[in-house]
Amino acid sequence: MVYELYYWPGIQGRGEFVRLALEETGAEYVDVALLPARKGGGVAALNRYLESEDIERPPFAPPFLKAGRQIIGQTANILLFLGPRLGLAPRGTAGRLWAHQLQLTIADLVAEAHDVHHPISSGLYYEEQIGAARRRAKDFREQRMPKFLGYFERVIERNTKRSPWMIGDSLTYLDLSMAQVIAGLRYAFPKASARTLRDCPRLIALHDSAFARPRIERYLRSSRRLAFNNDDVFRRYPELDA
Amino acid sequence: MVYELYYWPGIQGRGEFVRLALEETGAEYVDVALLPARKGGGVAALNRYLESEDIERPPFAPPFLKAGRQIIGQTANILLFLGPRLGLAPRGTAGRLWAHQLQLTIADLVAEAHDVHHPISSGLYYEEQIGAARRRAKDFREQRMPKFLGYFERVIERNTKRSPWMIGDSLTYLDLSMAQVIAGLRYAFPKASARTLRDCPRLIALHDSAFARPRIERYLRSSRRLAFNNDDVFRRYPELDA
Repeated sequence: MVYELYYWPGIQGRGEFVRLALEETGAEYVDVALLPARKGGGVAALNRYLESEDIERPPFAPPFLKAGRQIIGQTANILLFLGPRLGLAPRGTAGRLWAHQLQLTIADLVAEAHDVHHPISSGLYYEEQIGAARRRAKDFREQRMPKFLGYFERVIERNTKRSPWMIGDSLTYLDLSMAQVIAGLRYAFPKASARTLRDCPRLIALHDSAFARPRIERYLRSSRRLAFNNDDVFRRYPELDA
Repeated sequence: MVYELYYWPGIQGRGEFVRLALEETGAEYVDVALLPARKGGGVAALNRYLESEDIERPPFAPPFLKAGRQIIGQTANILLFLGPRLGLAPRGTAGRLWAHQLQLTIADLVAEAHDVHHPISSGLYYEEQIGAARRRAKDFREQRMPKFLGYFERVIERNTKRSPWMIGDSLTYLDLSMAQVIAGLRYAFPKASARTLRDCPRLIALHDSAFARPRIERYLRSSRRLAFNNDDVFRRYPELDA
């Protein structure tokens, strides 16, 4: 099956969590909105699904994945679906639920990292909410990021398989997502994330191991990997880091 | 099996989405933190799981559910687990994924409704962030709430079974959650929600049908149903409504 991924062009965003799983396993996929408009790509490709009146099960927002006739939305839900098919999920039902629980906790962290620069509204420019952003950033750096990363560090520490991964002894989609979050936080908050990660040696090792996988490494060096930038979820505004 | 639900005492919060599913089906459960402290209840019951060092798969935050030896966190994940067991999930795999996708979209709406009164930090009082809250509330009332509710209204409209429910022709946990969100938005934003719901007759009908189910109605009149209040996710601050 050739999967079709639909996500905003120009940013890694939440689409990247899906891309990493597809890339690690060499799955065939088309990143539809990255095609030129004359080939059915661009934002129009997204809007066909978001605005069309004849789609029975419309997604609320990108990313969404088309697998045959099925359209699946919500990042963590896409990975819940793809994980077992790509061989990137734990084997048993309980393990899969645990992986999904952690993926949802990652989603919460990602939403909070986004809201640091957009605490009032995604519809306003950063510059229109910079005062609130400064206050939220302080809370994120001092409370939320350490709380989340400390939690994930403990999860690896308590993995009874004593592997570098979050669950069991082989890589899951969750590890790829976790590595992506570490990379994003390092981009957005170079100073604060370095401070927090001093207490998270297992997360650093997980990031390094995940991003050194041969296919992932090749992907990260390819032109398919977009650079972090300030239209994305993780943004670098020096005044929000400290 | 007797389920054990763990959630902050004194509020409906995210625990309520789980309670409604358990109540609708007459499932046996203990709301552990609502027990007196001398019977192992109170916040200490939560902290045993959140802070203990010997739990292999610790939850990040309440609510979490104990089912036998399994501990399951993240509201939508708990419902993903409980739905089929309680007979409150669609039958096929694709339907279950679609239900979960919508439940995650409800979770996003709930998080945004919370952040209206806490746009800067959950660790600060409302009064310390009231300026930012006013601005975020305007965006929520005018953009986000209409966008989310308009979307859910369309989902019911496109249900090919032409039932009052969101998926198929029988009630799922998703409908109970949706009804709870409508009730919460009406409590928090009586004026703005009335305005938005004028265009959502199907959501109003779904709310009324779900909350009129015999067991749910009995539950809502019981002392187990806590009242909405301003320590909760949905809060009524007149200055945030308009």
